[in-house]
Amino acid sequence: MADEFDVIVIGAGPAGENVADRAVRGGLSAAIVEENLAGGECSYWACIPSKALLRPVELAAEARRVPGLDIGPIDAAAVLARRDEAVSRYDDAGQVEWIEGVPAEFVRGRGRLDGPRRVRVDLPDGASRSLTARHAVVLATGSRAAVPPVPGLAEAAPWTSHEVTAAEAVPERLAVIGGGVVACEMAQAMHGLGTLETTVLVRGERLLERLEPFASDLVAESFAASGITVRTRAEVTRVERPAPGGPVTVHLSSGPPVEADELLVATGRRPAVAGLGLESVGLAGDQPVAVNDSMRATGVDGGWLYAVGDVNGRDLLTHMGKYQARVCGDVIAARAKGEPDDLPALRDLAGGYGAPQVVFTDPQVCAVGRTEARAREEGFPVRAVEYDLGAVSGAYLLGDGYRGRAKAVVDTERRVLLGVTFAGPGAAELLHAATIAVTAEVPLERLWHAVPSFPTVSEIWLRLLEAYGL
Amino acid sequence: MADEFDVIVIGAGPAGENVADRAVRGGLSAAIVEENLAGGECSYWACIPSKALLRPVELAAEARRVPGLDIGPIDAAAVLARRDEAVSRYDDAGQVEWIEGVPAEFVRGRGRLDGPRRVRVDLPDGASRSLTARHAVVLATGSRAAVPPVPGLAEAAPWTSHEVTAAEAVPERLAVIGGGVVACEMAQAMHGLGTLETTVLVRGERLLERLEPFASDLVAESFAASGITVRTRAEVTRVERPAPGGPVTVHLSSGPPVEADELLVATGRRPAVAGLGLESVGLAGDQPVAVNDSMRATGVDGGWLYAVGDVNGRDLLTHMGKYQARVCGDVIAARAKGEPDDLPALRDLAGGYGAPQVVFTDPQVCAVGRTEARAREEGFPVRAVEYDLGAVSGAYLLGDGYRGRAKAVVDTERRVLLGVTFAGPGAAELLHAATIAVTAEVPLERLWHAVPSFPTVSEIWLRLLEAYGL
Repeated sequence: MADEFDVIVIGAGPAGENVADRAVRGGLSAAIVEENLAGGECSYWACIPSKALLRPVELAAEARRVPGLDIGPIDAAAVLARRDEAVSRYDDAGQVEWIEGVPAEFVRGRGRLDGPRRVRVDLPDGASRSLTARHAVVLATGSRAAVPPVPGLAEAAPWTSHEVTAAEAVPERLAVIGGGVVACEMAQAMHGLGTLETTVLVRGERLLERLEPFASDLVAESFAASGITVRTRAEVTRVERPAPGGPVTVHLSSGPPVEADELLVATGRRPAVAGLGLESVGLAGDQPVAVNDSMRATGVDGGWLYAVGDVNGRDLLTHMGKYQARVCGDVIAARAKGEPDDLPALRDLAGGYGAPQVVFTDPQVCAVGRTEARAREEGFPVRAVEYDLGAVSGAYLLGDGYRGRAKAVVDTERRVLLGVTFAGPGAAELLHAATIAVTAEVPLERLWHAVPSFPTVSEIWLRLLEAYGL
Repeated sequence: MADEFDVIVIGAGPAGENVADRAVRGGLSAAIVEENLAGGECSYWACIPSKALLRPVELAAEARRVPGLDIGPIDAAAVLARRDEAVSRYDDAGQVEWIEGVPAEFVRGRGRLDGPRRVRVDLPDGASRSLTARHAVVLATGSRAAVPPVPGLAEAAPWTSHEVTAAEAVPERLAVIGGGVVACEMAQAMHGLGTLETTVLVRGERLLERLEPFASDLVAESFAASGITVRTRAEVTRVERPAPGGPVTVHLSSGPPVEADELLVATGRRPAVAGLGLESVGLAGDQPVAVNDSMRATGVDGGWLYAVGDVNGRDLLTHMGKYQARVCGDVIAARAKGEPDDLPALRDLAGGYGAPQVVFTDPQVCAVGRTEARAREEGFPVRAVEYDLGAVSGAYLLGDGYRGRAKAVVDTERRVLLGVTFAGPGAAELLHAATIAVTAEVPLERLWHAVPSFPTVSEIWLRLLEAYGL
């Protein structure tokens, strides 16, 4: 086994895998170091299992809106079994095979920086191995769920996204701390699969507070209709769980405490930098690894260090991590070969427009670019238009009582879209049209000739443009 | 009641309604003449009822692919009842109210051209009324199902799209002549709602022959799996139906005849020009009304005649008719006011790229632009790439055994998309992204930065671009 590679990647999540893949396609050799499962959080404890849990809940809700369909109760055990299949039963053999097929060397162990271009790996057998990179080391260690310092919380051994997506049974009563994507998705998944009392504790005024307010409202309305309790301005002051695995009590700064059988903490994520040896190359050891648009870490002599995905703190989304990874792998290969490294493909341009994101609740919420509020804060000349998604024929045909809404945020000078948000059942696949329009800055006058097919929900595009005055 | 209007529209389908709406917004007065129901074929006997019939069939199929969901047989009576609601029980009061709110005058009766700028209307009470247009007459009479001159066929009083979408019961045995969109959609709708023997008789080699071959294959495979029989190279020679409403026998040039309880003819449509008085203004009376890109009829002195929607034979799709109508209404208003009439918004540009279309079968098929074959015929420098839609994580998560495929046809010189086709369950809403990319000619290098969200089916965009070599 060689100990020198052109590129060494620490972390075999989707971002790390993609860096290695692109670098190898560019003619370089690569090793990937991973202490946990190859495939990363996304494959086992995030995107994949969460969507496997949500899909039947979403589809059952859709079917209940269509007269003539008779849908029975959801068999949670069957859903959990399909989740197990979707996560390959937490076995990464397939992923390791994929990595080896790149081909890249897969090194199982805990990797950390050990000075310039050097990576020290603690192997599972207790030995260690020192690797040297000829061109680049790429950090792709992702992030970990943050557990806030609330008295009694850590001792209560709460679920994070990791445990809830891997649940072996559905708790009877679930309390959720947080109001973001993970909180909303998992509250709805568990509730749909059989949790009888689900309580979401939001510190602020609304769910999904980074998204347009109407999206929060529609999700809150859906939660209320299905019996999920949402408590806003809920400041958790103390948590008690007298017996491990037993009932848990969540005390709040006002109002009665919440009793539950399980507690999910979903209050954000921190970059996984602990023990990564950042100090050995002169970087702070407790911060995201700052990078420029080519994913090169700033403040490191020689420019050999890169970071992609959650660990760089730019856009904590799997697809953005993979996108950064494509940029990064290509830029490393270009630089290694002495080719130009300033082509548009070798820059993270997408992040600057505002990363696309989907929340797989029912209704689904998806957005790209800037919210109206953010666009105004940033000083753009803005006019926003909204339209009732349920008033589009294609949505009416999907089921009775379709509730949804769409909003477009327009730069009135350049007449391009700064941001688009859709909320409604099945809205997820509407997003990519907006992602293209926003990212490619397609002028409204050009979008006017992109005729949405009748009767699809995409006819919302026509309605939004008409609402703008076209 | 005035008899002179700025614009007179014959035909109150979606296209006619939109012309009047845009012209009135542009400051003109308008009248719409309609002999049947305001709202047109689309609202009562085409898009709307067909999708109302298909939706539960599609959703039941989706649910059966998801472990943990228990879906019972479809209650056809409930589905037909929802269809009745979707078509407003064949009552056009709401549409007439909409027209009057434009405001435009709604004239119920049979309209025909009666010399330049004049429209004669045969009123329901037997009287007639003569209307004069100051600026324009717009033909928007749509199309009618064509019934081929097969011996015995007309006498057998077969269903066309009109009758099948309005069916009050599901036949036990259904024979379908034709293999296009209506044939495929309605065969699957009836079969899904309870028809026991469904036989589709296709004259050519495959279903949906204007689309990419892989789409035909996937639909054929789905038909076979659900027990729908498809007979290709099936030339119908004679039809017998001894008793009205009784069993029907369809004889073919080879192979055994098909016995059925109902027969659907879906072999295309003809422009509705009969009795329209085209001869009174010097046009042929049995052809589509040829128009230029501003929807102005060619070969008519003074340029006061326009035609939008199916009657002009350009793109027989509701959304294209509505699009042409927006162009037409705006161009009439611009010309009436002496404003420039050559702005990009005053041209049908979309048709030239290849109209987008969705087939609402399971799998859904959607396409925009040119097929690979057509692009090559037209002399473009072409490279096409395909990808298995079921191999995208977002598709796998939708259900077990997801089968689908996507294809992008690229102009290798300009590096823009000439055409895109998707086939797969729920693929319809993927189309608009392609419609924007094709119509706005977004270069591949720009599409590369439009990051599809994980895990949506839209990740197919990344796979197609990677397959092309990005």
